[in-house]
Amino acid sequence: MCEHEGGIAAVGTEGAGLGRDDVECAARRLAGRVWRTPVVRCDRLDALAGTRLWLKAENLQRGGSFKTRGALLAVERLAAAGSRGVVAQSTGNHAIAVALAARAHGLPAVLVLPDDAVATKVDLIREAGAEIAFAGTLLAERTAMVEKIQDLRGYDVVDPYQNRDVVMGQGTATAELIGQVRAEGGRLDAVVVPIGGGSAIAGACLAAAGEDMAVVGAEPEAVASFTAALRAGRPVTVPAGYTIADGLRPDRTGSLPFDLAHGTVASVVRVSEVAIEGALRAALLHARLLIEPAAATALAAALDHAAGFGADVGVVLTGGNVEADLVTSLLSRPDVPS
Amino acid sequence: MCEHEGGIAAVGTEGAGLGRDDVECAARRLAGRVWRTPVVRCDRLDALAGTRLWLKAENLQRGGSFKTRGALLAVERLAAAGSRGVVAQSTGNHAIAVALAARAHGLPAVLVLPDDAVATKVDLIREAGAEIAFAGTLLAERTAMVEKIQDLRGYDVVDPYQNRDVVMGQGTATAELIGQVRAEGGRLDAVVVPIGGGSAIAGACLAAAGEDMAVVGAEPEAVASFTAALRAGRPVTVPAGYTIADGLRPDRTGSLPFDLAHGTVASVVRVSEVAIEGALRAALLHARLLIEPAAATALAAALDHAAGFGADVGVVLTGGNVEADLVTSLLSRPDVPS
Repeated sequence: MCEHEGGIAAVGTEGAGLGRDDVECAARRLAGRVWRTPVVRCDRLDALAGTRLWLKAENLQRGGSFKTRGALLAVERLAAAGSRGVVAQSTGNHAIAVALAARAHGLPAVLVLPDDAVATKVDLIREAGAEIAFAGTLLAERTAMVEKIQDLRGYDVVDPYQNRDVVMGQGTATAELIGQVRAEGGRLDAVVVPIGGGSAIAGACLAAAGEDMAVVGAEPEAVASFTAALRAGRPVTVPAGYTIADGLRPDRTGSLPFDLAHGTVASVVRVSEVAIEGALRAALLHARLLIEPAAATALAAALDHAAGFGADVGVVLTGGNVEADLVTSLLSRPDVPS
Repeated sequence: MCEHEGGIAAVGTEGAGLGRDDVECAARRLAGRVWRTPVVRCDRLDALAGTRLWLKAENLQRGGSFKTRGALLAVERLAAAGSRGVVAQSTGNHAIAVALAARAHGLPAVLVLPDDAVATKVDLIREAGAEIAFAGTLLAERTAMVEKIQDLRGYDVVDPYQNRDVVMGQGTATAELIGQVRAEGGRLDAVVVPIGGGSAIAGACLAAAGEDMAVVGAEPEAVASFTAALRAGRPVTVPAGYTIADGLRPDRTGSLPFDLAHGTVASVVRVSEVAIEGALRAALLHARLLIEPAAATALAAALDHAAGFGADVGVVLTGGNVEADLVTSLLSRPDVPS
């Protein structure tokens, strides 16, 4: 096992020492435990984007999202260190991933979710046998609850953004994508990744190091926390407007991901709600993939802007845990473009 | 190019000389022209089936179905022989495939569809620039129309069942599946394939030759034409009951596919409409794949019976060209199991 200390340094130096080698090491640790998800091509989406899109279908990942990668590594390390249980806050997918990883290691787990967590995700966490606590709708409310449970029970925290194992694990999705495109004789000019708390984009920046490839972020207009952080030069809490992209609702970027990503990210696309809806529908009807709104945010950015990014553009479709009702509603509405 | 004469011999000897080598040759001819579609694994579907399922996602194929494989080979051969145009009958997917292949070779194409062809498929054919003629709802009505067009225009017929290129091309989907499972260190005990006119199951039988692997067919209870053919010892026309599996509505198995498959197929599962609906919904919500009812027929057979077939069972998800309205309706109905 390749080793890294889990401790977090002072803000601004948190990413120190982390590099592409760590992502490659994480990939070796994960081999055979997560699906090597396919890279899907779709002529009709290429036509809409005006360029070649390579869709990394992490919606087909175990637990329904790429978050399974980082959580497996983080929980494995804690279990090896004799942890008595784990606690984590999440909008949903990281919680599912931690619940599955805890079950695999025989550890109890408490997952702290927002009151407006989507039912599909809550069901998957319950199915994995974990305990759930609800705490408001804001990141700060969930974090406070996590600290309380940590104190009360002595459980270890698996933070979705501030954990090096998590960031490295998330980076393996982009690293796999790069390798899979290369195996097909291609080379990516850019990769588009959605931004919630920041672990996906930070992992992508690590994976893309030395690749001469632009890393592009996509976030909802309604919660443009990474754009705000770039402007401020540090993570800031933004007013949380409503977005259907429940996975991208965190109102503040993590400082570790910001530290790792801010100097590398080529641009950040802010995506409207109607574009997220249209991309979700287009993925379903054209690429025949069910993706959740967070993944659709990245696809929407690619459909509108990828032609400017180059001839070959990767898109990390981060997850597929979406409400049946939302799909029904989007398919029924003739005003949603696709 | 590996050669085979296209002529059809007397019934009972039509498959003479066709073997697994021909499928391997077809795969080489198709390399780089069709997607090498992924094999998808899904823990929740495995749990429902009680065994490991390996889902060959031909719903992600160019043109939305595995039919693209055979049509490309058949139209290529005709184009090379100086064809002035092609005509084909189909419930939809073969027509899409022939339209795309004809466009690639600069040939005009007329596609003969049933009056109840699904709108998604009709749209894809129009998008490919082909001409469409509608002819009743029965296979015999479409075949008569094809002969008329053949006489009037001198176009070459690309039959969806009675054409060796088509059957060999369709077989490459199963051959790829076998190879992909092997590359993951697995070995299939069985493969489940839907039966409409029979090209998929015939191709699967060719691909599975020498593999010590059961080939299982799945057809709707409402149009159990292969079961009837097995009983009669030859293809027979059956009363066409209503099935949502539009791709499996042909009321008679082709004689070439029957000739190739009848001695090899291990069993045929007749699937109820409610099971087809449930499998389509399960594929979407659990595996995050949009599949059409024909593919769901194979998945339904696997969910109900695969545990009896062995530890590793392949399912060819033949296509994904499905109406948005049908998806909406299945997702909205609490009575559809998934």
